Amino acid sequence: MLSPGADTLTPSDYMKMRSEMIDDDESSRIGANLVLSAAELKVNSIFMKEKRAMIESSLINRTIYSPSTSFYYSKPEIDQTYLYQLIHRMPKGAALHIHDQSMVSLDWIIKNVTYRENVYMCMWKKEYLIYRFFRKKPTKSTCDWKLVNDARKESGDVNKFDLEIHKSLSLTATDPFIAFPDSQVAWTRFIHFFYQIGKLLYYIPIFKEMLWQTMTEFREANIQYIEVRVSYLGLYDLSGTVYNREYCVQLVKEISDAFVQRYPDFIGMKVIFLGLGNHNESEILDEVKEVMVLHQKYPDVVAGYDIGGNEALYHPLSYYRDALLYPSQQDPPYHLPYFLHVGETIWQGTETGYNLVDALLLNATRVGHAYVLNKHPHLMKLYKDRDIPLEVQPLSNQVLRLVSDLRNHPMASLIANNYSVVISCDDRTTLDSAPLSHDFFLCFTAMSSERADLTLLKQLAINSIRSMLYNYLI
Amino acid sequence: MLSPGADTLTPSDYMKMRSEMIDDDESSRIGANLVLSAAELKVNSIFMKEKRAMIESSLINRTIYSPSTSFYYSKPEIDQTYLYQLIHRMPKGAALHIHDQSMVSLDWIIKNVTYRENVYMCMWKKEYLIYRFFRKKPTKSTCDWKLVNDARKESGDVNKFDLEIHKSLSLTATDPFIAFPDSQVAWTRFIHFFYQIGKLLYYIPIFKEMLWQTMTEFREANIQYIEVRVSYLGLYDLSGTVYNREYCVQLVKEISDAFVQRYPDFIGMKVIFLGLGNHNESEILDEVKEVMVLHQKYPDVVAGYDIGGNEALYHPLSYYRDALLYPSQQDPPYHLPYFLHVGETIWQGTETGYNLVDALLLNATRVGHAYVLNKHPHLMKLYKDRDIPLEVQPLSNQVLRLVSDLRNHPMASLIANNYSVVISCDDRTTLDSAPLSHDFFLCFTAMSSERADLTLLKQLAINSIRSMLYNYLI
Repeated sequence: MLSPGADTLTPSDYMKMRSEMIDDDESSRIGANLVLSAAELKVNSIFMKEKRAMIESSLINRTIYSPSTSFYYSKPEIDQTYLYQLIHRMPKGAALHIHDQSMVSLDWIIKNVTYRENVYMCMWKKEYLIYRFFRKKPTKSTCDWKLVNDARKESGDVNKFDLEIHKSLSLTATDPFIAFPDSQVAWTRFIHFFYQIGKLLYYIPIFKEMLWQTMTEFREANIQYIEVRVSYLGLYDLSGTVYNREYCVQLVKEISDAFVQRYPDFIGMKVIFLGLGNHNESEILDEVKEVMVLHQKYPDVVAGYDIGGNEALYHPLSYYRDALLYPSQQDPPYHLPYFLHVGETIWQGTETGYNLVDALLLNATRVGHAYVLNKHPHLMKLYKDRDIPLEVQPLSNQVLRLVSDLRNHPMASLIANNYSVVISCDDRTTLDSAPLSHDFFLCFTAMSSERADLTLLKQLAINSIRSMLYNYLI
Repeated sequence: MLSPGADTLTPSDYMKMRSEMIDDDESSRIGANLVLSAAELKVNSIFMKEKRAMIESSLINRTIYSPSTSFYYSKPEIDQTYLYQLIHRMPKGAALHIHDQSMVSLDWIIKNVTYRENVYMCMWKKEYLIYRFFRKKPTKSTCDWKLVNDARKESGDVNKFDLEIHKSLSLTATDPFIAFPDSQVAWTRFIHFFYQIGKLLYYIPIFKEMLWQTMTEFREANIQYIEVRVSYLGLYDLSGTVYNREYCVQLVKEISDAFVQRYPDFIGMKVIFLGLGNHNESEILDEVKEVMVLHQKYPDVVAGYDIGGNEALYHPLSYYRDALLYPSQQDPPYHLPYFLHVGETIWQGTETGYNLVDALLLNATRVGHAYVLNKHPHLMKLYKDRDIPLEVQPLSNQVLRLVSDLRNHPMASLIANNYSVVISCDDRTTLDSAPLSHDFFLCFTAMSSERADLTLLKQLAINSIRSMLYNYLI
């Protein structure tokens, strides 16, 4: 073994050691040690030709590299690339971090749901449009409700009307870098989205159709399995009756089973119930107890529990310590799998970051985001040693203004060092993005080495399947 | 030792383990293990009160956090804070990465140099103003040269005129985030700056005054020592005679010695000659040979050699392998210290990043930037094991558009993991920033944990002194 930097290094030793060091470095990357089949190698050469062409064109012509810019500008460019089309079609495994109220395509909501009978809209506090199902126009509301179909007709221009709805719902209808000067402003807008259409999607017939449509869209993007965070708002019908979580579980099971029967290449959909981090501890304890019972009764549908929301403003996980320890304190201890939102922040050393510690202590099965993990060297080691999957969502992080240029996404360093990263698409309705495809594309073109090839994407898909199997096996 | 995440963890075990894990994590940070004296602890409590107030005010009031925004907006706010004023006054050790043509304050150049006799200006290619000393107006120039003092008088408004010069020279006179959509555009503007005033500052009487003024400004910011990258353009006088590198070395020695005699608390100034990475190998070889001789002859002035420039467009270091190995191939081998610009890029897996490998093979004494190091896990280990100081320059990286929000600066993760980081201020004239103070401030408020205290700043100062002593001792 040569000693690097020795003053007696000859030029030929130099080049030999240089390529060894580069190889050692590249071999640390997610998927670097996968061996591709002959057929995969053929595909790989196309992927790499396209990737290198994009990078070199930007470097040589000194043009803006579209994967590094705001999705508002990059989306139309990305969608036209052959590379994106290939990534959209390739098998991507499981979608493990998506949210029920933001998982179906925005177009489907606009062109389908808002055309139904009984859909009303009103301007909430002069700020933004909200949508609901009612049997009749509410008479005692402070908001001036109007049937969407009536408003559409009166507008005289259906396309323009629908485009306005689109603009009023998508966070990427204008440039987020300009619309949202920082993360807090973006979050405020983001939370409004859920007020706007959450209740619309919780109307039972729509919820059922949405589950089917979601699986259809994800399957079309060559995804085999879904775990969905359900922030349970209460399913309702036109009589005003509200149904409980168990009803929701049964409904997901019914639709998922039917979908799998129709498309046997699809594995199904499971539910992770999501508590909101602005609730008090007793509310969360009640949810934990309820989800524990459901997890025991419907192990093939209920995957586990999570607490989420705007971490910077909400309670830290440690505030819910006793509630979250409750299952493990039973005799015998009950293992309720946790899939926790942690460290979705650019702040360093705040309680949000230390949610990473709580997730370890709570034996989390996976964690969502962990954006700040790279700034916690001791915790990094623990996450690596325990091989805890990290649900990374490039586009969501960009639009919610954690990072502008995705080449600076902190997970790039963990991807280069073979952490258990899985890529997901978080709240794709608000982002107006495809199921996983845009996030895979951005990871491939902006969050990894120019040299990272198909093995990266293949391993990301494998990571998601491994994480899924883990849930099935325990 | 408790096993984290055990299903039988009790609530009290939980909190004990939680704080142990947080402490372990915090203790990895640069300076975390320093012990502060009673006097330092008093200062520390003021620093931390100010730092926490800034952070909490932003979090609670949901206002933009000024250290995270463009320096165009943040500078006026930063300068008013008591924390900045304290950091400006505290001892900061050595300034180890600054450039000769951009180290003195822009105000000094405008209010002093441009008021001299024989200073001419002209509009270069209708793009930007350039400034030069001439004995007489050049008659054979394609550019329409005019005496600056004449133009100033004719303008009728001296202040406005000087403000226009300021705007024409500073990269932060407008918002860089808007003016420069990406790093390449910023670099183009940046390179123009050197065309604008490089020759102005290389006029011998001005160069001498500039050295004195630079040491004055740095000493006023409580800095004890300077190593300056000299990209030797050729010192000249009004007769048109151009002087060689040795003359420059003698001049630096003369001014530095005089300054140290006048201010014995200042250690002095050394020179690192900077080759330009767009030169061919034989040019660089000639420089290496020349600098080797100067290093041997003036060991107390010449620190070593560097190759720099826009790495994305210039040759990789490996292109200069033979030239850079030249000193070590002599019999006996000659040790010429290298202080190399490496990895100043957001691209990953390009040759710019692999300059990090060449710096290791060339046994670099320190490296400049290493912005991309965090994406190279194997190389990270080698840099850590060999304790190679990394010259980090937050503000330069922001203005040259590598990163927008400095909380995403990749060095934050290396600062959290006790790499040998030294903070410097790169090209402060173009940035309109103070000697080290703004960069220390930004490191403290945006690139480290909310909990990181005076020990971080103290250790950064110690790191710079250690790096300096290392050069003195070998």
